[in-house]
Amino acid sequence: MAGFPFTIAATDGEARTGVLSTSRGDIRTPAFMPVGTAATVKALTVDQVAQSGADIILGNTYHLMLRPTAERVARLGGLHRFMRWEKPILTDSGGFQVMSLSKISKVKEDAVTFQSHLDGSRHVLSPERSIEIQADLLGSDIVMQLDECVAWPAEEARAAEAMRLSARWAQRCKNAFGERDTQALFGIQQGSTFEALRRESADRLIEIGFDGYAIGGLAVGEGHEGMVEVLEYAPAMLPADRPRYLMGVGKPIDLVEAVARGVDMFDCVLPTRSGRHGQAWTWEGSVNLKNARFADDDEPLDPTSDVPASRDYSKAYLHHLVKSEEILGQVLLSWHNIGFFQTLMVQLRAAIAEGRLDAFRREFKARQRIG
Amino acid sequence: MAGFPFTIAATDGEARTGVLSTSRGDIRTPAFMPVGTAATVKALTVDQVAQSGADIILGNTYHLMLRPTAERVARLGGLHRFMRWEKPILTDSGGFQVMSLSKISKVKEDAVTFQSHLDGSRHVLSPERSIEIQADLLGSDIVMQLDECVAWPAEEARAAEAMRLSARWAQRCKNAFGERDTQALFGIQQGSTFEALRRESADRLIEIGFDGYAIGGLAVGEGHEGMVEVLEYAPAMLPADRPRYLMGVGKPIDLVEAVARGVDMFDCVLPTRSGRHGQAWTWEGSVNLKNARFADDDEPLDPTSDVPASRDYSKAYLHHLVKSEEILGQVLLSWHNIGFFQTLMVQLRAAIAEGRLDAFRREFKARQRIG
Ligand SMILES: [Zn+2]
Ligand SMILES: [Zn+2]
Repeated sequence: MAGFPFTIAATDGEARTGVLSTSRGDIRTPAFMPVGTAATVKALTVDQVAQSGADIILGNTYHLMLRPTAERVARLGGLHRFMRWEKPILTDSGGFQVMSLSKISKVKEDAVTFQSHLDGSRHVLSPERSIEIQADLLGSDIVMQLDECVAWPAEEARAAEAMRLSARWAQRCKNAFGERDTQALFGIQQGSTFEALRRESADRLIEIGFDGYAIGGLAVGEGHEGMVEVLEYAPAMLPADRPRYLMGVGKPIDLVEAVARGVDMFDCVLPTRSGRHGQAWTWEGSVNLKNARFADDDEPLDPTSDVPASRDYSKAYLHHLVKSEEILGQVLLSWHNIGFFQTLMVQLRAAIAEGRLDAFRREFKARQRIG
Repeated sequence: MAGFPFTIAATDGEARTGVLSTSRGDIRTPAFMPVGTAATVKALTVDQVAQSGADIILGNTYHLMLRPTAERVARLGGLHRFMRWEKPILTDSGGFQVMSLSKISKVKEDAVTFQSHLDGSRHVLSPERSIEIQADLLGSDIVMQLDECVAWPAEEARAAEAMRLSARWAQRCKNAFGERDTQALFGIQQGSTFEALRRESADRLIEIGFDGYAIGGLAVGEGHEGMVEVLEYAPAMLPADRPRYLMGVGKPIDLVEAVARGVDMFDCVLPTRSGRHGQAWTWEGSVNLKNARFADDDEPLDPTSDVPASRDYSKAYLHHLVKSEEILGQVLLSWHNIGFFQTLMVQLRAAIAEGRLDAFRREFKARQRIG
């Protein structure tokens, strides 16, 4: 297998810290990837994203294939050049958002057909087309297989059907992707909350062989406890020597619990979405800056942070911006939040390296409750 | 008189270039002040504003006295500290926006009373209160007198009445302001489009004595030609050794024509408002980035600019952001536009210093028509 070297520097229980080395730079793990849906991490310049400490961002195939279209991004030099982000990009396969965002979608063995939520136009997304869009047109560094993710709760038969379709698509994606030195392909484990299905899924992916393995089908409504239950067994089914990526997760507490169970990578819109709605994530939990108690609070959100949004602006000022519905409030809180998520990753990596993750988890949970 | 030293380095016809030295830094004239209405130049961080080359920004007394209130800004250390802008700030008196934005306003000899457009609460703004808010609570560097600005077109009798009230308020503002070493007070010439009234206004202000003189009551609907007509005589009525500030102006072509007639300072919401609506100002005029002709345009708005928004992002990317209604599109176009207005000022200053303003004006007008 080609793909990127993944070096695990230390473990603490199931948790690991290391580096996934790509041709566009190192990804320190555990890693949190801010989501750059439509070729922009919402409200932020790429320089602000980089300053937050992010090593990698995620791009959404579904959004980009519809607008500006993958062919146009290719003509303009690929996604990195188009949006001016030079570090690694992971793209999703488009499947999840086809099924959740498009007007009508129909999953068949060959491909999923759907209508655009923007203009109703008809599109076809096959495993082969997803790979072409991600790897050849957008120029993604980490490419995800096309999969089918069932809603929660799911009947076991329905979950099995979708997991097996995903496994067949995994093979087709692998065939289409081939072997590449400067790009990696990740398979996606499905199986909903059924341990036997998760096992079958993992075994089938491992037989095909991927550069990394994602845990899909979580963060779809099962809640923190439901997710943690699956994480008790799902990550350990995936190869220990390859990165494990929990898709679409999550809140800080979810990240901490998933890291403790052996997950290496995450993505979520939460920090930017919260930021656009006046919410800041902090060590004491999430706070809404619109709250009147901040009107005269001259302290910044985090005086120890390197991120200007966290360190340099008072909560009183942020409160004023949020109350006044100023764009700068959305910018600064999005920036603060992705900075906070990165700082959380820094601290998780240090805790694992120093063998004190359990203590870190206990303290983190206790402090989060204060907020 | 105290106030700030104003050094004129060169003149070219009526035009002048120089430096107004304040205790918070030099203002190179002709100067364009981006508008920071509610303690934020809309959509931009102060670092982005500074990077555009702005020496000074404007804050709006009306907005700030209502939210977060001038007293709160004072408790939080003043407007500079509150919004993290360390260079000079000019504040308007609040009068213009009281009369244009508030629900109900009533102008009497003593003061103007009005209801907030935010919550209907009742407020009183007198000349003395305006000075207190601007100079003592917000901590403005350049304080404007309270004036009454009439709508256009105005009857001569109505324009005379407002001009004379403004002159009486000018004296009360001067009395309230007193003499200060680290802050300046500007009077405002009124008189609508009536030359005799403009003359009477200027004479009354000069008799009181101010650190600088504004030309008010323009850019209220009279159009470019109507404004230029007044600028044929109004600036020359004001002292040549003090800065002249044309309030609320304007489009690039307005700025060029006003500079040629002896104006030194400007403010306008145009660059940021245009930027939020997908419009970019360029040497070839204004262009709407939503236009399909930019979809595949890989060139930046201005490769020679020092402003990242102008230099580093392709028009195709900006088009995509505007079409997708992404906040980053509003950020980048606002940033580009204030950068363009600053670059225009840089070029005007150079043209005056080198005695080639007439040639610059001709070329500028010819190029602007292309867009
Ligand atoms: Zn999420
Ligand atoms: Zn204006």
